[in-house]
Amino acid sequence: MTSGTQSQLVAIRSKFESELGDFLSTQTGYLNAISSDLAPVSTAISVFLLESGKRLRPLFSFAGFLSAGGNFSSPEIRAMSSLELLQACALIHDDLMDGSDTRRGKPSIHRHFESLHIQDELEGFAPQYGLSAAVLLGDLCLVWADQLLNSSGLSQAQLKRVIPIYDEMRVELMAGQFLDIHEQTQKNTDLARSMKIARYKSGKYTIERPLHMGAALSEKSSPELMHALSEYGLPLGEAFQFRDDLLGVFGDPTVTGKPAGDDLREGKRTALIAMTDARCTDAMREESRKYFGKNDLDEKGVAILQEMIISTGAKTELENLIEELTDRAMNAVNSPHINEDARATLTELTAIATKRSM
Amino acid sequence: MTSGTQSQLVAIRSKFESELGDFLSTQTGYLNAISSDLAPVSTAISVFLLESGKRLRPLFSFAGFLSAGGNFSSPEIRAMSSLELLQACALIHDDLMDGSDTRRGKPSIHRHFESLHIQDELEGFAPQYGLSAAVLLGDLCLVWADQLLNSSGLSQAQLKRVIPIYDEMRVELMAGQFLDIHEQTQKNTDLARSMKIARYKSGKYTIERPLHMGAALSEKSSPELMHALSEYGLPLGEAFQFRDDLLGVFGDPTVTGKPAGDDLREGKRTALIAMTDARCTDAMREESRKYFGKNDLDEKGVAILQEMIISTGAKTELENLIEELTDRAMNAVNSPHINEDARATLTELTAIATKRSM
Repeated sequence: MTSGTQSQLVAIRSKFESELGDFLSTQTGYLNAISSDLAPVSTAISVFLLESGKRLRPLFSFAGFLSAGGNFSSPEIRAMSSLELLQACALIHDDLMDGSDTRRGKPSIHRHFESLHIQDELEGFAPQYGLSAAVLLGDLCLVWADQLLNSSGLSQAQLKRVIPIYDEMRVELMAGQFLDIHEQTQKNTDLARSMKIARYKSGKYTIERPLHMGAALSEKSSPELMHALSEYGLPLGEAFQFRDDLLGVFGDPTVTGKPAGDDLREGKRTALIAMTDARCTDAMREESRKYFGKNDLDEKGVAILQEMIISTGAKTELENLIEELTDRAMNAVNSPHINEDARATLTELTAIATKRSM
Repeated sequence: MTSGTQSQLVAIRSKFESELGDFLSTQTGYLNAISSDLAPVSTAISVFLLESGKRLRPLFSFAGFLSAGGNFSSPEIRAMSSLELLQACALIHDDLMDGSDTRRGKPSIHRHFESLHIQDELEGFAPQYGLSAAVLLGDLCLVWADQLLNSSGLSQAQLKRVIPIYDEMRVELMAGQFLDIHEQTQKNTDLARSMKIARYKSGKYTIERPLHMGAALSEKSSPELMHALSEYGLPLGEAFQFRDDLLGVFGDPTVTGKPAGDDLREGKRTALIAMTDARCTDAMREESRKYFGKNDLDEKGVAILQEMIISTGAKTELENLIEELTDRAMNAVNSPHINEDARATLTELTAIATKRSM
């Protein structure tokens, strides 16, 4: 892990941000030409997208491209940036489905539009306006992602290789999201089901497919490289999701941008909860029902559940699993099919994805 | 309008349906391979898409293709069919935003999943499950539309011509949808604003852009043809929307699949309502507030508002406007840039779009 790699990632990230800024500025002009009533739409998306975000998916796509020995220029950077618009759709819709009030320390999109409705004393029911705006802004981000990808300046040959991966990734994302909301309706927890959700929502969507898309941008990609990138990306993606599960329970609000223990308040059935559940006594399980998934769960209640997750050994079990998955990913970095120049970047990204220290 | 054209449209519509059926059957297999928990997703979308629908957008796309002198084969038919998946996304999300209980005489998607939740005695809050399912199924339809279009077998040259139109159409759709929900929050009605919404939601999305996409599938399309198709499609699309506004107030529930006067109950501010409002006395406006937009509006209340819309002359005004717009569209059919073979089809589709007799 060299400081040279770190500064390369910082530099490439600022290129993504500059492309996203340019694209959004053009689209803002386009919407304003239709009607000035669309100004809140482009403003909200621009703030949401440009003021924060780690650009993880474009960065993994970049690493995939390097793995295939690609030399980047502007069209590839634009194509990779489009993943950030897709992610904006996923987050906006996710917050709506979860009823989350905040995202990255700011009001979520449906809450933001709900507030605009109240502030401007508009007619009708503010939460319904918030819901509608979040549905449409998410849809628009999904469409803009395509538009940025399609108009990025990639060659027809590149598009032909990349688009099928992009389409499949998006189907996998929606499938993973549905399995996740379905999981929240089940009477029991199940580690195998939670693992599958982690694989689809994160293993594939966040890491494996962005890597594949990046590799497919280069004409030097091969089935062997794609396989090696899966060997790296799938375990790492699962580790990433499990780290997220831990952060949802134990994370520092100033880092996560969400209230402490938010996943506990929401009653989110993650792999961590499935592990805890499997290790609980009946008495503990009974006790946990008083707190888990309660909207008004206070600090004390959060602490009781945290203690249960620690004392059963579930936290340690998941941390060990994260370590094991990370080791497996790191072993794959040494595949002879991965271009040497990509190894430092893949290593650096592994640290970012599993420790969230960026 | 010959019976030959009618039977051609019926034949082409059944080709669309067959392509959609094949695509959904493949996708159902794909989802089931991920998890059997996804079965309700593919079943609900298949029922929604295959059991009803006029296939208007694919048909207009077909007419655009004929206008450019195109000879169709399977890839073009598949590409046109994809518009029906996009429309499924628009309807699923629209029903969620409007809080509509029914679509085409059946429960809307969010209500359907809400019922599944209750019926299977799942954990959690049924309406939130319904909301989440509708968000994700709509998203999935949007992605599947792209996947069907991208994998239709079109040449790279065709895709390069079609995709920019497709992307712009989808941005226009989302812009029109946002303007529509925003309109419902305004303190006053405004005919110019309602007209703009009709232009974006219907003129462009339902008719002009599908025509353009169809024309762009042929290598013989030209800017002059695109212009002629706009001269036909934009007024016709507005006429289509205004017919829809009339049906929302005066339509027969057995035809519309929605309860009588549903738009009145919902308080939907359409061009028809803006026209009525402009023609009302202050006393009538005061009286209308007792009924318009009331959830529990009964038959008597619907009849009072209908009478107001008739007696002010707004209904006649809008019917005259529909006629004028339809005439304008029909004049454009005779443009020398439109291939002769397309004229009967365009004429037939005009009748379907403005009279809804199909």
